[in-house]
Order: sequence, then C-alpha cells, then structure tokens
Amino acid sequence: MGKKIGWIGTGVMGSPMCMHLLKAGNELFVFNRTKSKASSLMEEGAAWCNSPAEVAGNAEVIFTILGAPPDVEEIILGRDGVLGNADPGKIIVDMTTSEPALAERIARDASAKGVEALDAPVTGGHVGAREATLAIMVGGEKETFDKVRDILNVMGNNVQYRGAAGAGHHTKMCNQILVAGNIVGAVESLFYAYKAGMDLNEVIDVIGTGSGASACINGLGRRIAEGDFNPKFFIKYFVKDMGIALAEAKRMNFSLPGLALANQFYISAMAQGYENLGIQALYKVFERMNGE
Amino acid sequence: MGKKIGWIGTGVMGSPMCMHLLKAGNELFVFNRTKSKASSLMEEGAAWCNSPAEVAGNAEVIFTILGAPPDVEEIILGRDGVLGNADPGKIIVDMTTSEPALAERIARDASAKGVEALDAPVTGGHVGAREATLAIMVGGEKETFDKVRDILNVMGNNVQYRGAAGAGHHTKMCNQILVAGNIVGAVESLFYAYKAGMDLNEVIDVIGTGSGASACINGLGRRIAEGDFNPKFFIKYFVKDMGIALAEAKRMNFSLPGLALANQFYISAMAQGYENLGIQALYKVFERMNGE
Repeated sequence: MGKKIGWIGTGVMGSPMCMHLLKAGNELFVFNRTKSKASSLMEEGAAWCNSPAEVAGNAEVIFTILGAPPDVEEIILGRDGVLGNADPGKIIVDMTTSEPALAERIARDASAKGVEALDAPVTGGHVGAREATLAIMVGGEKETFDKVRDILNVMGNNVQYRGAAGAGHHTKMCNQILVAGNIVGAVESLFYAYKAGMDLNEVIDVIGTGSGASACINGLGRRIAEGDFNPKFFIKYFVKDMGIALAEAKRMNFSLPGLALANQFYISAMAQGYENLGIQALYKVFERMNGE
Repeated sequence: MGKKIGWIGTGVMGSPMCMHLLKAGNELFVFNRTKSKASSLMEEGAAWCNSPAEVAGNAEVIFTILGAPPDVEEIILGRDGVLGNADPGKIIVDMTTSEPALAERIARDASAKGVEALDAPVTGGHVGAREATLAIMVGGEKETFDKVRDILNVMGNNVQYRGAAGAGHHTKMCNQILVAGNIVGAVESLFYAYKAGMDLNEVIDVIGTGSGASACINGLGRRIAEGDFNPKFFIKYFVKDMGIALAEAKRMNFSLPGLALANQFYISAMAQGYENLGIQALYKVFERMNGE
C-alpha cells in the first residue's frame, strides 16, 4: 500500500494496531502524550512527531485511539489539534470508544473544511489488537469508508460499515450494553454456584454450552474459576463506556435499568480499588457485598 | 433395554422425552392430569395409569416432569403419591425445574423407605426434548445415577452428574441466572440499536460474534429482530425459575441484584399479559416502558 499514515495514541491498543500498519509497508507518523510508549514503533521505522498538528501535516489519513471523549475532542478539535492542521482531502479516523454526538460534531466540522472523518471503534481487546483480529465498527460517509477499508483490514478481521457519523460508536455501545448484561449474569451465576458448594469449572462445563452460553461465561467465567482477575478488558474503561451509553440513552430519551445497575456495580468496583483489574473482578464485589 | 418406566407429566417437555424412551424399547406407564395429552404416547404403546400411585406400583423407575415445586411435592410426597406407593429398590427421578431444598427432602424421605431419588432438571427447551439433545443435570447418590444413566442418555446428549441431592437443581439455577443476565443485556442492547435508528440484524451480525456473543443474542435476538415473540422458553416458566433462584439465594444468605431486577422486569411482562410469550418478549416491556 505505502500510504502516509498518522497515528495518535500508542497505548496498549494503539501500539500493536500501528505496528501492523508499519509491517504492511506504510509510512507512519506517530504522536503520543508519553513519548516512551512510542519507542518500539520508532525502532520499527515510525517517524516521531512533536504534536497532533505535525501528524496532521505529514499524513494523508490520521488515526486516533485515545482514552476518553475529552481527549478526542482536544486532540482532534482543539486549538493545535488534527482538524485545524489538516488540508482538504485528508481523512481522520477516530478509533476511540467515544460519544456518537462527538463523532457527529467532528464529521460536521471536518466536512466544513473539506476534510473527511470516520468513527471506527473496535472490540477484541489487546489480544485482538496484537493478532489483528479486531472487529471494527465504522460510521461516516460510505465513500470515505471505501477509501480506508484496506487500511482497516490490516488491523481487524471483521470490518463493518455501520452507517452515518456516530453509527460506529452506537454499535460499540450496543456491544458494551450486551457485555454488561452478560457479565452480571455470569458473575451472579458463578457466585450462586460457589455459595451452593459447587465446583465452578464443572458448572461452566454444563451451563457454558446451552441456553446461557456466552463469551463471558466461557472466557471470563473460567478466569473467575481460576481466581484470575487480570485484565482482558479493564474495569476503568468499561465504566467509561457504560457512562457514554447511559448518557446517549438519556439523550435519546429512554431508560436502560439493567445497564444502570451494572454501572453502579462497577462504580463500587472502582471504589474498592479494582479499576485496573479485568471486568470479571465484579465477582470480588459480590464476595465483599455478601460478607465473604 | 426394556425397563418398566413410569412417567408423570406428559406436557410439551414430557411427551417427546417419554416418546424417546418408548422407541428405545421400554415399557411405559404414564399418568397426566389431563389425560388427552398422553394420547399420542398411548397410541405408541404406553400404558395409561389412573394415578401416580398406579404408576409407582407398575414401574421400576418413575420420572416426573411437572409445572412447579408444589406439583412435585403433591405428586411425589402427597398422600396418594409416588413415594407412598413405591416398593424398596425403586427409583424416583424428578426432572421438573424445582427447589434444591425439596429435592433434599424427597431424597431423605425416599431413603427412609429404601427408595432412591434423583433431581434431574434439563435445559434445551421443547426442541431439545424433541431432538433428544437436552442437557440433564443430576443430583443425588452417584450409585443411583449410574443405574439410570443409560435411560437419561436416551433423552439428552449432555448428561452430567453434579453431586448430592439438590445439586441438579442448583446447577439449573446457575443456568437460569446466567440466562437472566444475558437476556436483559440482549434486550437492552437491541432496544438501544432500535432507538439509535439501526438495523437490528446488522447490529447482531457485529456484536453476536465478539466479546458480547451469547446464545441469547444470536438466537432470541434474531427473533426480536424479526418481531417473533413466540415461545422457545415461556415467560411464565422463567418467572417461576427466577423465583426459586431468588428464594434459594435468600435461604443461603446472599443477594443477586441483577437477577432481582430481571425478575421484576418479567413480573411486569406477566402484568402486561405476556406469560405465554417467549422470554425475548421482554423487548415489548422495554417498548412500553419507554413510550413506544
């Protein structure tokens, strides 16, 4: 391919994603708040830029994958941000799990400048990022999507165009709402099993294959059974995502009581200091809540 | 095999299960509150009995699959029930989704009479019953399980011994708790998709394969997308099961807030007249709750 690609955000997700683009023969221009986190990419030939503006000046397509919506707003729309320094014809792709309303605003502001913008959040975690097996959900103009589709296919194996600006984020919210229900079900089910004196793995052998089957019970449930609360997906990011989904639902004027309860559980998990554990550590909240 | 088998409860689950036993060459003695529901079995050679007592007198192994725990108590432990009319050495297998504490009581009372008893609830619904692909979770003495294992294998393809009396029911409760979380997640996710103006099937194409994957989203979620609220699993039975799980959890002294919320949602579904719809009709509760 050999495109000039910008990349802002070289954390646990961004680094391996960016690495795939480098290895596919693209020229990479990278920026990250903490420069050291980009060093492995620079060793592989990525060019360091001192600001988002410099990335925007050098690259044809600029990717961002950041912590939360305020970071996206600052990096893309801020005074020294990407959009203010991007010439017409360039493309901005935000892969952060962020707000649909912000994606709409970015797309609108970009369009006014002759720049194109997409929202393209992912699922699959750092394993998916490392193995290029991410699902990527894309919102924005279909023509813009067609221009970057090949690049996205280097990072994921399930790239889906979902509709107008914001549709990528909306789809990601559907995924997180689904996960919220599934993890609460898995944790409560396994806590019941524990209290009833049963072997958790034996229970999963049965319930993991039938009407209750889920990626949560068969993946994170096994980790709970082993007492492994290391993050596949961090609690702190899940809390951020649930906050976005609840705010969007309120904006669209409907209630999601199950998600609201899950959110409260995970706020308790944060209060107990579990922000850097995986979302399966909700099990520990249930233990403490029930006097274990 | 050619065993003398008793069967009480020839409803939507019991009839096809019993039919498999007949076709495997067993002699069947059946009783059902509504006799007409046993007619297809009698056409295939099952012998009608006028009471549970008569079933117990004729058969070596007596199966029950009934509506709810009070039915189980009456049919097995009642004055003219199975246990009072079973000679030592006979085996009672209750396949109703029922209370672990009741299973313990039945096992104790049976043991005092030299009769053996198992709890063996199933998952897989009427499709699993028809196709003999049920998962069967068995509690009771291991020696008793070994005696009826071959019979159970005629009705299901995932027969698991789970431990002492009540362990079958406890495992089934784990399954139902898991389903409760999964269906709430699936319904809230799809309701969000609908409100965000997205095509439900397209959303399922994405979220049904990743971290949120579940039998609920890929099975019942597709039905929601098609507006199909016919029962694969009836709301009225799910409400019964959740009531058992919540009562058992209270008895064991721990809380399950996610299950409690799901239970409340489904009580609303009952109030709205949806007791004979499938559990995916929770989606209709969300519509009404949110002014649709």
